[in-house]
This record gives sequence, C-alpha cells and structure tokens, in this order.
Amino acid sequence: MTTASSPSPEPTTAPAAEQEPLVEAPLTGISDRAATQQAREQQVGQRPGTLTIREGSLPPRLFLISYSAHFFAEQEYHSYEELWAYYQAHPDLKHWLDVRGYNNLALMQRLMQDFGIHPLHMEDVLGDYQRAKVDVFDDNRLFLVSRMTDFTAQLEIDDDQLSLVTGSNFVVSFQDDYDDCLDSVRNRLRSGFTMIRHKSPIYLAYALTDVVLDHYYPTMAAIGDYIEILEDRIFNGRPNRRLLSRILQMKKDIVRFRRLVYPEREKIAEILRLPENVVPEETKVFFKDCYDHAIQAMDLAESYRESISSLMDLYLSDQSNRMNEVMKVLTIISSIFIPLSFVVGLYGMNFQRENPDGTINHLNMPELYEPWGYPALLGLLALIVAGQLIYFYRKGWLTNR
Amino acid sequence: MTTASSPSPEPTTAPAAEQEPLVEAPLTGISDRAATQQAREQQVGQRPGTLTIREGSLPPRLFLISYSAHFFAEQEYHSYEELWAYYQAHPDLKHWLDVRGYNNLALMQRLMQDFGIHPLHMEDVLGDYQRAKVDVFDDNRLFLVSRMTDFTAQLEIDDDQLSLVTGSNFVVSFQDDYDDCLDSVRNRLRSGFTMIRHKSPIYLAYALTDVVLDHYYPTMAAIGDYIEILEDRIFNGRPNRRLLSRILQMKKDIVRFRRLVYPEREKIAEILRLPENVVPEETKVFFKDCYDHAIQAMDLAESYRESISSLMDLYLSDQSNRMNEVMKVLTIISSIFIPLSFVVGLYGMNFQRENPDGTINHLNMPELYEPWGYPALLGLLALIVAGQLIYFYRKGWLTNR
Amino acid sequence: MTTASSPSPEPTTAPAAEQEPLVEAPLTGISDRAATQQAREQQVGQRPGTLTIREGSLPPRLFLISYSAHFFAEQEYHSYEELWAYYQAHPDLKHWLDVRGYNNLALMQRLMQDFGIHPLHMEDVLGDYQRAKVDVFDDNRLFLVSRMTDFTAQLEIDDDQLSLVTGSNFVVSFQDDYDDCLDSVRNRLRSGFTMIRHKSPIYLAYALTDVVLDHYYPTMAAIGDYIEILEDRIFNGRPNRRLLSRILQMKKDIVRFRRLVYPEREKIAEILRLPENVVPEETKVFFKDCYDHAIQAMDLAESYRESISSLMDLYLSDQSNRMNEVMKVLTIISSIFIPLSFVVGLYGMNFQRENPDGTINHLNMPELYEPWGYPALLGLLALIVAGQLIYFYRKGWLTNR
Amino acid sequence: MTTASSPSPEPTTAPAAEQEPLVEAPLTGISDRAATQQAREQQVGQRPGTLTIREGSLPPRLFLISYSAHFFAEQEYHSYEELWAYYQAHPDLKHWLDVRGYNNLALMQRLMQDFGIHPLHMEDVLGDYQRAKVDVFDDNRLFLVSRMTDFTAQLEIDDDQLSLVTGSNFVVSFQDDYDDCLDSVRNRLRSGFTMIRHKSPIYLAYALTDVVLDHYYPTMAAIGDYIEILEDRIFNGRPNRRLLSRILQMKKDIVRFRRLVYPEREKIAEILRLPENVVPEETKVFFKDCYDHAIQAMDLAESYRESISSLMDLYLSDQSNRMNEVMKVLTIISSIFIPLSFVVGLYGMNFQRENPDGTINHLNMPELYEPWGYPALLGLLALIVAGQLIYFYRKGWLTNR
Amino acid sequence: MTTASSPSPEPTTAPAAEQEPLVEAPLTGISDRAATQQAREQQVGQRPGTLTIREGSLPPRLFLISYSAHFFAEQEYHSYEELWAYYQAHPDLKHWLDVRGYNNLALMQRLMQDFGIHPLHMEDVLGDYQRAKVDVFDDNRLFLVSRMTDFTAQLEIDDDQLSLVTGSNFVVSFQDDYDDCLDSVRNRLRSGFTMIRHKSPIYLAYALTDVVLDHYYPTMAAIGDYIEILEDRIFNGRPNRRLLSRILQMKKDIVRFRRLVYPEREKIAEILRLPENVVPEETKVFFKDCYDHAIQAMDLAESYRESISSLMDLYLSDQSNRMNEVMKVLTIISSIFIPLSFVVGLYGMNFQRENPDGTINHLNMPELYEPWGYPALLGLLALIVAGQLIYFYRKGWLTNR
Repeated sequence: MTTASSPSPEPTTAPAAEQEPLVEAPLTGISDRAATQQAREQQVGQRPGTLTIREGSLPPRLFLISYSAHFFAEQEYHSYEELWAYYQAHPDLKHWLDVRGYNNLALMQRLMQDFGIHPLHMEDVLGDYQRAKVDVFDDNRLFLVSRMTDFTAQLEIDDDQLSLVTGSNFVVSFQDDYDDCLDSVRNRLRSGFTMIRHKSPIYLAYALTDVVLDHYYPTMAAIGDYIEILEDRIFNGRPNRRLLSRILQMKKDIVRFRRLVYPEREKIAEILRLPENVVPEETKVFFKDCYDHAIQAMDLAESYRESISSLMDLYLSDQSNRMNEVMKVLTIISSIFIPLSFVVGLYGMNFQRENPDGTINHLNMPELYEPWGYPALLGLLALIVAGQLIYFYRKGWLTNR
Repeated sequence: MTTASSPSPEPTTAPAAEQEPLVEAPLTGISDRAATQQAREQQVGQRPGTLTIREGSLPPRLFLISYSAHFFAEQEYHSYEELWAYYQAHPDLKHWLDVRGYNNLALMQRLMQDFGIHPLHMEDVLGDYQRAKVDVFDDNRLFLVSRMTDFTAQLEIDDDQLSLVTGSNFVVSFQDDYDDCLDSVRNRLRSGFTMIRHKSPIYLAYALTDVVLDHYYPTMAAIGDYIEILEDRIFNGRPNRRLLSRILQMKKDIVRFRRLVYPEREKIAEILRLPENVVPEETKVFFKDCYDHAIQAMDLAESYRESISSLMDLYLSDQSNRMNEVMKVLTIISSIFIPLSFVVGLYGMNFQRENPDGTINHLNMPELYEPWGYPALLGLLALIVAGQLIYFYRKGWLTNR
Repeated sequence: MTTASSPSPEPTTAPAAEQEPLVEAPLTGISDRAATQQAREQQVGQRPGTLTIREGSLPPRLFLISYSAHFFAEQEYHSYEELWAYYQAHPDLKHWLDVRGYNNLALMQRLMQDFGIHPLHMEDVLGDYQRAKVDVFDDNRLFLVSRMTDFTAQLEIDDDQLSLVTGSNFVVSFQDDYDDCLDSVRNRLRSGFTMIRHKSPIYLAYALTDVVLDHYYPTMAAIGDYIEILEDRIFNGRPNRRLLSRILQMKKDIVRFRRLVYPEREKIAEILRLPENVVPEETKVFFKDCYDHAIQAMDLAESYRESISSLMDLYLSDQSNRMNEVMKVLTIISSIFIPLSFVVGLYGMNFQRENPDGTINHLNMPELYEPWGYPALLGLLALIVAGQLIYFYRKGWLTNR
Repeated sequence: MTTASSPSPEPTTAPAAEQEPLVEAPLTGISDRAATQQAREQQVGQRPGTLTIREGSLPPRLFLISYSAHFFAEQEYHSYEELWAYYQAHPDLKHWLDVRGYNNLALMQRLMQDFGIHPLHMEDVLGDYQRAKVDVFDDNRLFLVSRMTDFTAQLEIDDDQLSLVTGSNFVVSFQDDYDDCLDSVRNRLRSGFTMIRHKSPIYLAYALTDVVLDHYYPTMAAIGDYIEILEDRIFNGRPNRRLLSRILQMKKDIVRFRRLVYPEREKIAEILRLPENVVPEETKVFFKDCYDHAIQAMDLAESYRESISSLMDLYLSDQSNRMNEVMKVLTIISSIFIPLSFVVGLYGMNFQRENPDGTINHLNMPELYEPWGYPALLGLLALIVAGQLIYFYRKGWLTNR
Repeated sequence: MTTASSPSPEPTTAPAAEQEPLVEAPLTGISDRAATQQAREQQVGQRPGTLTIREGSLPPRLFLISYSAHFFAEQEYHSYEELWAYYQAHPDLKHWLDVRGYNNLALMQRLMQDFGIHPLHMEDVLGDYQRAKVDVFDDNRLFLVSRMTDFTAQLEIDDDQLSLVTGSNFVVSFQDDYDDCLDSVRNRLRSGFTMIRHKSPIYLAYALTDVVLDHYYPTMAAIGDYIEILEDRIFNGRPNRRLLSRILQMKKDIVRFRRLVYPEREKIAEILRLPENVVPEETKVFFKDCYDHAIQAMDLAESYRESISSLMDLYLSDQSNRMNEVMKVLTIISSIFIPLSFVVGLYGMNFQRENPDGTINHLNMPELYEPWGYPALLGLLALIVAGQLIYFYRKGWLTNR
C-alpha cells in the first residue's frame, strides 16, 4: 500500500507522464498477489470484534473540521483529549473527524467508545480489506466503506479503504494514509458557498463517497491509455512474451477494478433502498447520481475487458503469423535449392564413359561431353528457379506477409 | 463527435455508399478509445450539479416549435429573451424548445431556472456522456436521455446524446449538434394531420425517443453490411492482419452498440412501470411498441456478435490452413529431392576400382562401369519420384488445399 | 422469404431427401444475413401505426371458416364485402378469418376497423418481423404473434410470421404466404369430433399456436440430421474450409432458431400469467402443455449448440493433426536421407592419395582404396537407415497417425 | 432405449466391469443423437391429448401391490378386469399399480378413465420424452415425471421415463421397460417394517422419486471412472483422434446428464412450494432431502464438466507438444548434417590444381594435397557436431520433451 | 480424507513450508476424484433416515464442555452414560457435546434420540458429504453443516464436514476427525472473559461456523502462494506437461473450493432471513459479519480463477513460442547451408573441359581452371552467408526470441 496520489487538481496527467516506461517497467505479476496478501493477513479464529493493528499501519493523525452554515474551523489535533473537549463543547456544529493512520490501539478503542462505533465495524476499519458496503446501526446511523483506487507507476491498481461512520452531528472517516483524494470536499467546505455546509452529516458522507467514486475515472483513463499503448506496440512491434505478460497484467488490473467497483454499485443501490429516516429523499437524489456513475464505471471496465480480449486475439494471431513467415522463408529457400542441388549432384556422378574395352559408352552421361553441356545446364537451373519464383509469387508468398 | 448523419429520408443508403473503402480505410483501433476519452473528461471531485461546458461544444442555437391541434409556429430565435417572451405569452400552446449546442454557460443556467430543470440533470445534459435513462422529478415531470447512433465512414459508431425535459406544456430537447435525426418528427408536427398535435408533451417525448430508437436500425444494417463484406474477403482473399483488425474493430463496434441499446431498453421498461399520473396508459401503449423495438435491436446485436465470432473462427482456421499449405509444399519438394540427392551423391563417390596392385576391384561401385548404368539410374530416380507422387496424391496433398 | 413447406403430413421426410447435396449446396453465408435484411427494411421515423406494405408482399386471399358444435362452413371469398356480410349475418357462429397475403392497403385498413385491431398491432402484422409476443387489448382480447419455421434446401432456417387477433366470436389470422402448416387444425375443425368445435375462439388461438410450435420439431430434427452428416464427414473426410463453413453455418442456424424459440416460451409464460377473464383456466392447461414443448425445443437447441461446439473442437484438432502428419513425413524422410547424403558426400571428396612427391598418403581417405570399401559403406548406410526406422517406430511415428 | 440395468443390489459394479473396453468400444457419436431422435418422433399438429403408441413400445404387464400397515399383497395380473375388480373390492387398502409397457392403446385408455388421468398427462406418459415435471390436477392429485438414467456399455447415458399418478388411495406408475431400479422400494414394502406401509400414497410417490434420484449417483460414478481412465490414457499414451472423440463423447454425456437433472431439481423445488393439502409438511421434509441430493448431483455434473474441459486443454497441449517434438528431431538432424554436407561438398569440387601451363596453382584447394587434410577435415566435422550438440543440449532440446 | 491440519496457532505457515516440493510432488490428478468417490459411496435406494457408518470412520470420542457465565468444565467421557448423567444433572448450564468419529452405530442412534436429532439430519451427519446448509426443525432448533477445508501437502483441498445441532441449552457438534480447527473457540470458552460464555448456544454455533469460515483464508493463501510459484516457473523455466498438469490441478482445486464456499454463503444468507425466534437479531449482526467473509472468500476464488486462466494463456503462448524458436533455428541453418551446398555441388560436376577431339571446351566450367577460382568461390560463399545473416538480423530472428 503505497502513498496514494497527491490531491492534485489534474489527476489524469500523472498516469500520462508514466506512459513511457510501460514495457520497460518491472513486471509485477499476472496473478493477483494483492488477493493472496489479503488472504494471508486474515486473522483466523479470533473473537469477533477483536481489534488488531495491521503491520505497517501508520501512527494516527487526527484532523477535525467543524462547520455550520456560517462557521468553519479546521485543525489538526495532536492530543485526542483536546479534540474531544472541542467536540463536546460544540454540539451545535457539525464535525468531520478525519482519522489518518491506525497504529494506536488505545486511541482506536477510545474512538470506538466515544463515537459509538460497533466493534465489528471497527474491526472492518482496521482490517483494511473490507469490500465497499453499507451497514445501518443504532436505527439510523451508517457505516460506509469505500475503496479508493490509484493506478501506480508499476501499472498496478492500488486501493485503500475509506471507512465512514455517521452520527447525528458528525462523520468520522478512517483511512490508513496521510494523503488522500478528499481535498476537493475539504475545499468545498472551506469555500462556504456550497450546500455541503447547510446540509446534514449524511450529505457529507455522500460527498466523500462521491469523490472516491469520481476518482475511479482517472484510474480507468490511465488503464485505457495503457491499453492504447499496448495496441500500438502490437501493431508496430513483434509479439514477445513481455508484451503478452503486460496484456495479462492489464487484464488482471481490469478484473481487480471490476471487483472494486461492483460492490460499490451494490452499496449505493442498498443506500437507495434505505428508509427515509436513515437517508432522506433529498439526499437520495444525489446518491442516485452516484449510482449512475458507478454503472458507467462498470460499463467502462467491461469495455476494457473486451479490448484486452481483442488484443489477446491479435497477439496470438500475430504469433501464428510469425511462424508462418518463418516457414515460408524456409520453404522458399529449400524448394528452390534442394532440386538444384539434385541436378548438380546428378552431374557429379562418376559413371564412366569409357568401357573397360576402351570403347566409348555413349549412354553414360553423354551430356558431360557436349560442348554446350554446362551452359545448357546453367540455363536449366535458371529456368527451374524462375518457375518456382513465379509459383511462389502467384501464391502471394513473396509479397504479402 | 463528428457531425451526425444528415436527416436524409433514406438513411440506409449512406453506409452502403461507404462500403468500398472498407479495408483501405485507416484503422481506428480495436480498443474502445471513446470509452477512455469519456473517462478522461470526467470531472473529478466537483460539487454535484456544477455546470461545465465541455471543450469543443458548439454555440447554442434555439429553435421553438409551438403547436396545438389547430396551430403551428416554428422559428429559430437568436435572442433568448424573445423566445421566453413568446413562450410566456402563449401558455395555451404546447412548445418544443430545441437547444442545439451548449457553449454558453449563462444561457444554460437561465434555461435551467426558467424551465425548472434539476441541476444534476443539467450536469448530465452538458456532460454529454450519460447512458440512456429516465428520471422522474417534481412528481410528474420526466428527464429522459437517449443516445443517437451513427455509423461513420471510419467504420466507427458515433453516438450523440439527446436529453429531454418535459413539463406540463413543453418539452425541452438538448443536443450538442446542429444536424440531427429528428426531422421526421418535425415534419409530422408541420403536417398537422397526426395525433402528435393533439396529444400532451409526453407524447412528443415518446415520438422523439422512438425516432432515435428507429435510427439504430440503419446503424445495425450498416454494420451487417460490413460483416458481409468481411465474410466475402475472408472467403476470397488471404488472411492478413488488416482483415483481423477489421474483424476486431467491428466486434468493438457491436459491443459498443450493445452498451448503448441495453440501457435504452432498461429506460423504456422503467417508463412502462411509471404510475398513470406520470405517463398515461394511452401513451404507454406506444412506449410498449418502443420496447419491442429495443429488444429487437438487442437481438440483432447478439446475432452480429455471433457472426463476428464465427468469422474469427474462420479466419484463425484459415491462418492455420495456410501454414499447412506452406508445410505441404516444403514436405513434397523435400521428400522428393532429398532422396534423389542421396542417390546421385552415392554415385559421386570416389571409391577406386583399381586396387593398388593394378587389379580391378569388382566390389567397388561396379555400377559405374556398366554400359547401362546411367540410364538404369535415371530410371530408378524416375521410379522414386513416381512412387512419391502416388503416395502424396493418395494422401490428397496434391489436390485439395 | 420463400414459399414455406407445403402442409404435407410427413414434414420430416422433406429435409431427409435434401441430405445428399449437403456439402455441395451453395454456401449461404455464416453471418446472419436475414437479420441485416430485417434491419434494412425497418421503417425509420414513421408515425407509429403507419401501415406500409412490404415489398414483395402477396395479394391477399381471404378464407373464412365458420363453425359451431354442430355446424361447419369453409369458403374462400374473393369479395371482402361478401365475407363481411356473411360474418355479420351469423353472430351465433364462431369464425376463423384466415388472411394470406397483405398487398392491399385499403383491405388491411378495412380489416383493422371492422375487427377492431389496434393500429400498432396492424403495423406489427404488416412489418412481418415481430418476435413472438402476446398483447392484451380491449380488456380481454389477445394479439398473438408466432413465428413458423422451415428448414430449406439451402440449409437455412426460413421463418414466417403468423399473427392472430382474437375477438368474442372470431379469430383473425394473418400470414404473408399461401401455404402454411395449419392444415392439421383445419382438418380437426372439418372432422367435427374434436373439442375445438365446442370451445371458444381462444382455444382456436391455442390450437394454431400449438401447431406452429409443433413444427419446430421437424426443423430441429433436420438440423440434427445435418449435424450427424457433418460429424460423419469430419470422421471420414479431410478437414477443409467448406466443411468448416458448413459447421459455422449450422451454428448460425441454431442460434437463429434459439432466437425464435426463446420469445415463444416467454409469450406462453405470459399467457399463463394472464387473468381468468382473458384466458380461462381450462385453456391454460393446454397452454401449459405448449410451455413444456417450448422448453423442450430450447433444450434441443442447447444440445445442438453443444454438438456444434464439439464438432468445431474436433475439426480444429484434425486440422492440427494433419499438420502433424505432414511434419512427420518431412521429418522422417529428411532425417533418414540427410545423414546419408552427408556420408556419400564425404566419399565424394577429392583428397589426394598421392603426395606431390608421388608417395602414397595413407591418411587421405584410405577407405576409398580398400577392396571392401564400397560394400562396407553400403552396409553402414543400411545400418543408419535401420537405426532410424527403429527409432521412429518406437516413437510411433510410422504406425499411428 | 435398451433394457435398463437389472435391479442388482450393487449397481456401481456394473460400470466398473465395463471399464476395460473403453477406448476400443465403438464410438457412438459426439453429437446428441438421442435429442434428434426425440425431435423426429415428435407428433406434429395432433389434437392435444391424442394417444399414440410409440414404435417399439412393449406389450404392457400389470403388477399390483396392495398394502396397508398390516397387510401386503403383490401380484402380476394378466387380465385387467381381474385387477380392476380386486382394486374395487379393496377401497381400504393402498394400491400401487405398476404398468410396464404401453403397447395396448385400449388398455391405456381404460386406465386413463378408471384412474382419472388427464389426457394431456397420458399423452406425456406415452410420448416417453417428457422432462421431469410435476403437475397438480383435480385440486390435490399429482402427476410426476422422473427420468431414470443408466450408463450403458456403449458409454452412453440411457434414460427412461417413470411417470407417476397419485390418487387418494393409489399410485399408478408407468414405464416402458420390464426391468427397473425400483426394487428397493418394493422390498421395503414387502418387509413391512418401514414407514412406507403406514403413510399415504404421496409418500410412496416420494419413495419412487427418491430412488430414481439415488440412481443418478452410480451413473455419475461411472462417468467419473471413465474420466479417470481418459486422464490416465492422456498421461500415458499419445494423443489421437479416438481419444479426443472419447473426451467429446463424455462431454456430451455430462451435458445430457445435466439436462436430465436440472428439471428434476426444479420439479422438487416446485413440490416444496405446493400447499399443505397437496403435499403435507411431514412429507416435504423428505422431499427437501431429495432436493439436497438433486443439487449435489448438479454439483457433480459441474465438477465433471470442468474435468473434461481440463482434459481437453491437456489433450490439445499434448498435440502441440508432439508437433514440437517432431520439429525438434527434424531441426537437430538437419542442423547437424546440412552444414556437414556443405563442407564435404566443398571438398568434392573439381577446381584444378594444375594450371593449363602445367604449373601448380597453390590457391586452388591446397587442402586436398596436404597429407593431414583428410584427418583435419574429419576433426573439423567432429567439432561442428560437438558444438551443435552442446548448443542443443543447453537449449534443453536433447533431454526434456 | 486424511487427518486434517493440527490445530496449530499459525496455520498459514504449514503450507508455506510445503512449497518446495511443488513441482516434484506426485501428481494427484486434474479431474475431481473426490467427487467421483462421493458419487460412488452414495447409498442407493435406502429407506430415508437409514443410518450407515461409512467405511474408514473413526471410533467415536466424546468431549463435553459445560459452561455458564461463571462456570466452566471440560472433560472427555469414555462412557456415554456418564456424560448423559452429567448433562441431565446440569440443566442450568450450557453444554457443547463434541463428537469426534462415528464408528459406533448404537451410540449414534442413542445420541439421535437423546438430543432429538431428526433421522434425515443424522443421515447427513454420517454421510459426511453434505454441502453446507441450514435446516430449522422443531420450530426453533438449527441443523447446520459446514465444511472445513485444508490444503494438503499433495496440493489438494481436503474437506471435512462439521455438523452442528442446536438445542435450548446445548450444541452437539459432529466431525469424523480427532483433530480440528476449533481450538480457538475452545480457548475462548476456557478463558472466560468473552461474550461466548454469556450468550445462548446459538452464539456458540455462530462461533464454530465463523472459525470454519476463517480457516478458508489460509487455504486460499496457500493456493495463492502456489499460483505465484507456478507463475515463477512459467517465467523462468520451459513449458512442459508437468507444469501444465500442475496448473490444471490448481484450477481443479479452485473450482472445488468455490463449490465449497458458495453454499456456505447461501447458508448464512438463509440464516439471516430466519425469524427472530430462531436466530435473535443480536446474533444476526455476527452472522452478517460471516456473510461478508464468505463473499470475500468467493471474490478471492474468482480472482484466483482469473489468475489460473492467465497462466494457461501464458503457458500456451510459450509453447507456441518454443515451436517458433525451433523453427527459426531450422530455417536459419537450412537457409544458409542449402544454397551453399548447391554452389559447391555445382563445381563438383564432371563436365569435361576436353572435347573428344582433344581441343579445350572453354564453355564447360571454365571457372575450375582459373587460378583465382577457388578463392573467388570462397568469397562468394562468404558473401551469401553475410547477406543472409543481415537479412535474418533485420527480421530480428537472431536476437529476440
């Protein structure tokens, strides 16, 4: 899990800049090693709700954004007590507590208690491998998991988990990364002119979910760009195993992407079915928009899958074509020279013109003794070659590949 | 997004005229570059409902058709104020406001307010990449998206978005193109003898949706024509990579077409499920007819997909056949001449007939000293050749390909 | 759309008689040209319910069968007025109006009005390309479309549309063909001993639907027969492109058949869900029987599809096998004779036995001067050949193919 | 339809004994000829409920088992009248009328009337090709169809139809075979200690359905055994067309089996949904057990399908491997001897050492006159061979296959 | 069914240690022999609920854990009577009766009666081949089947059945193995600090189900590890049949795993739909967590399936590549030396320079008599070789593979 893409305003340019090393980049494998990693890290036989900090987790940083229609405050707290005091002192504000990094078990347990998070949900947060999902708890609170994607310079899809817990006047977000793709939401909060400041925390949860979903598009665009590069390589270069590995790796990425997007769609469909008291109708309009985006992302992934499959077909046909070409060279050269060799071998035989009695045997290779023998033979050979060349030309073996 | 097909009355002839340059036309790629383009243009992290004009959008032109059972007026307005005034002054008429081109943000915002369009819908209009869908808003108004297809001279499916917003006495249509395929509806309005003048705006929305769907058939017919040309090429020509690329490109087009038609069917199915107060039963009869057409278009696409897959099989088998043919030529020529070369090489050996003591060694290659040696050898060679030819003939290698 | 099979009592024999020209019959293409034809004929942008007569439609012939439990009359009318008068005069009878051929627009419009047919349904009738479907209109009347199949001598599936409109005391059937497969129903009506004379028109509609469905079986049997012929050809003959084309053509036919049968099943399932007042329970028992038949036809089509796929696998493996065989011949002959050629070439070298000083150089090719040189060499060559033959025999290259 | 497996107590041993002739058994085809047969025998255009005896149907034999908790009688009746009289005389007993063979139309019609069987059901009985299904009639009576499978010595799945009609105090079973797999139920009835004697006829119907389903397992086990034999053949033998045909035939069998089992599962699921008055809850518990078995049989079939697909992959890869091997032999031998032939050919040239003026031309092939020429050449040849052998060894062409 | 993995605390390390012998381990087959074994052992035609002990079943051992919030006792009983007495004497405690091994029919029947187990369920327990399922009986008791997986050193998935029967104050678990993966639950019970001691037996059933599901992850991780090893082998080694067999075997394992997990998911979904009185809402929260895990396991299996399919593609392409390479070597060597052989053969011809009359024939092979003939020829040969090498180099045949 590397550091995710910086929240740059033009996210599509980053992958574009990484296009060059495409075929030269080290191969990271065509099997889904992230899946195996996930299986390996799964805790076995634990009490449900047991909190465990994954190895390599970052020390937590706490950011609190407090806002109302007319107020905005944003601060990183180094002491949780201070943060909690501030939160307690402002029940009238809405709060977004942004937790980045999990490596403090005591803090995590404290957060769980203070914000009323279910232990099973907290386990999902820390496990970091939960598919996108939504759970309703305490009648009208939501636990939402999204997966943020990023297309790395190693041509792999890197995904990080964003977990959201909503409450009556707060949203707690969890991610095990200091950089994220949520800055556009922060900026909208800061700017103060947007709906987001007037609406309930569930709208903030929507906005965060939406921005994660929006980031699927640059990932897909990057994959699409690489597919086009692969297509160019196939058209211009020779088929080789590295190219095939790249194609298969890209296929893995697309399959992985689909596995990320599909539950996202399911999640939003489930949100749309939630009762009015959990997600109000006016917010559902926005989630419906999300839903359209998720379906469109699935469409894109399907489309890429078809492209990869076509590239595979083209690659394999090319491989077969090259064999054909090799065989044609062999056939043309052999077909021309093997008969010629026979003919010249014929006249290399040592049949004797003189019989033992000294008389001349006119049956034994008289051609060798004709004055025009050699030129005639050369002419014959030229005729043979010409005939074969015409035959091969007519078959199209000399011109088209 | 090129200029769409002119609203000619015989749309199927245009693709027919483009058949000739089929294989010579520049390849436009077998991966779905339009999908990548779409992903790349997706706005990331914006406030929902933010209006952005896509690059390359056309300056808007406004056409207003106002009609009732006994009245018809049609005019292009260069000033929106005039148009609005006319619309305001005639609440008793039904109006079709036809907006072509989006490149005026202020105007778009004005339209949004005046005609009560939801910002998320307006965003979908301007984004120009929305799948076919229907949304109900304000209890009984519809927001409809259709995608108009066109099969270009580059053998690509070009699709444009048609967005419709209905109101109690109007329909607003949006498209980012000056030419479209809606003239048949305009003519029906002009003619005055049709139901369309007597019915509510929702019927006009139906008529526009229907005409877009009808235009899928010429697109499909053009694809079908090209598939037949490809089939002929495979049967008559030699397999080559360009032909394979064409096949794969056509496959991409069909997949793309399916991706366009499928949501269209879903959309109409959803319309058929809408309550009576949104879409009256008498109009649903017509949408049911649309639904049959959409299913038929899906059937066609499936059928073409099967055809393409069969062409692929045929192509690959041909490629293998050609290798077979090359190998047979090599095998026949080698099998005939390599043994002959051995025989003549045999009699080119220099085993000495004379022993060192001058006596004659009758064991060493006596054939060379026979008067009938050479003719006998030629006969032997002819026999070998004949035997092999018979063998190869029986195997069918000389006749069938 | 050729003339359909005559209503012969043994429909399975016709295809059987056509088996011989199987591989010699002209290839009619492996892509679905009928589908493209359909797309091409689709009317674009017309007012819904516009009636258009398709090119090549036949002049209509009108047959009226009037019956009750104790009465039967059957007549072809050349004047519609007479027919209408007769129908009007006998409201107590049940009538089957059998319209064959559509090429009279005025008559079609008259029928539409007199028998209360919805314009959209009439459009479906004349369009002749509607999938099987059922529509309920006027509360309890049915519009039914079936597709009659026929397997032609060109090894293609030909399908014709049968449209039925039911009323309180009549059924109107439409088909654009003078011959059809409905004679068995007519005979049952004529015979007078069957339920059909006692039951309501909806039962007649069932009987007509059922007989169409029953005719799917001879079509399937004919396809099955051809698949067996193809299988025999593959087992006994050599793979060639014509055979592959036949396989792919048969695959197209099966896919086409499935596309015809699947909506038939959907149609009947929908009939079974209709309320009691539209289709009475006692008639549904019979439609349930139809449903079983439709599912069985789908099963058959699936089974044939698997068979074709297995034949493809076998064909492709054979193609590969033949290449293998060619390569083995080449390898065996080359492997045997190329070494031999080397050996005899060796003894064709001109190394001099005599040194310049006239002494004998016993190192230079002394074999050539041995009295047993030549026989020994021949023995060596025979040994080499024997060794290789044993090697190839052990590898099984000489025996199994 | 051959005579089914005898009701031996160890049904799995029969297929095991037939394993040996596997590859030698005559090929019965890789397309589904039984399906075509079925299509061919379908009656076309008949009045529904018309009873027709299939060709080859057996003369009927009638067996009646009458039982109650404390009574048991079993007899074959040669006169139906006697049977009917006995049945009439014992309304207090439960009866199982076991009809084997249909070839007596009058008897069949009599049975239909006496036991109140619906004509459409009777048609299904005699047609002998009905998929597994359940119909409820007369409010609470069941018509059940099961298909009994058997794996024949010809490696084909043979299936026979068992039709059951339940009544208040009887079950009538129909099958067109004298031997069947129902003896275990008969024995349970005879033994008298089981529930079956105490329960209603519907429980008997369950018991018969269950025993048919149980017999799917030996069929599957036999197929599984053959798949293992095929796997061994592929691993140990050479790929040949007969083996491929076997694989494809086995695939057909599995597909056929799935087509038999799938409706069985549907049937039982439908039984489980029937109301209490038709199938009482206490019997449903047993049908639920059947349902688990049907699902498990489907699982097995899926598993075998995967196995066959893997065997195909292995076979095709082997075929390719063998080509590779052939090519390697050719390449090694050609690569070694063709250069050698060139070298010895070189020293077979006749360039003259003596100039016309009698002087010696030291440029023309001086090697031929060196005393060490020949041994040096032999050394060179040996070096070339050694070099190539090392090259090929390093490439692994000499060792691994 | 071998002895399952010991209940070691670090289950993922065991497979890791077995990685080395991967390719050397004996092949256990690519077809699913366990499925055939299952089909073969199926009892045919038995009375439902007949209890049969499978061959190889272990002698039963009985463990009883009795607990409440404040009490814990654990003991192995060698006499069932003692156990039963203890159980009877403590109705206030909750009991987990852990039965390992079934080989005592009388005991099994006793257990069935004492704990009110349904005979059909007991049959499922002893059959040991039941898919995961849940049945509700006696209104609110559950019969649960889970399948415990283990990845063996033979690279096979071994699965054992765990059957659970719940009652008001007990859970009976059945397994035919002395070692299991349930120790973590036992430890949680022993430790006394967990919820499990306070909750109802249904929670214990959940905990046991959950721990089985958790053990799917190490199995999957082991499969994933092997896939990575296979990937490395393909990249570094040569394609050979053993590698292909491994790939196909791994595919079989994954398919088998999916067949195990899928019903597990269905089972838990069914539990979540059970009414409150059977599974209380507070326990369902935990089962929902299970459900997420089951879906994730399915995802993993899908991902591995894709990986295996990519490895197959890579393998087959490699196989084709190697053929290509072989052909290139043959073509290069043949193309270079066959023409050379012709040239030197040409100058090995015996055309006579001297005419019969003693004059010199300057037409017959004058090159042989030129002083520079031989060096010029050598130069020509070198030129030919150089030309060809350049040609092949340009084609890339000399460098890239």
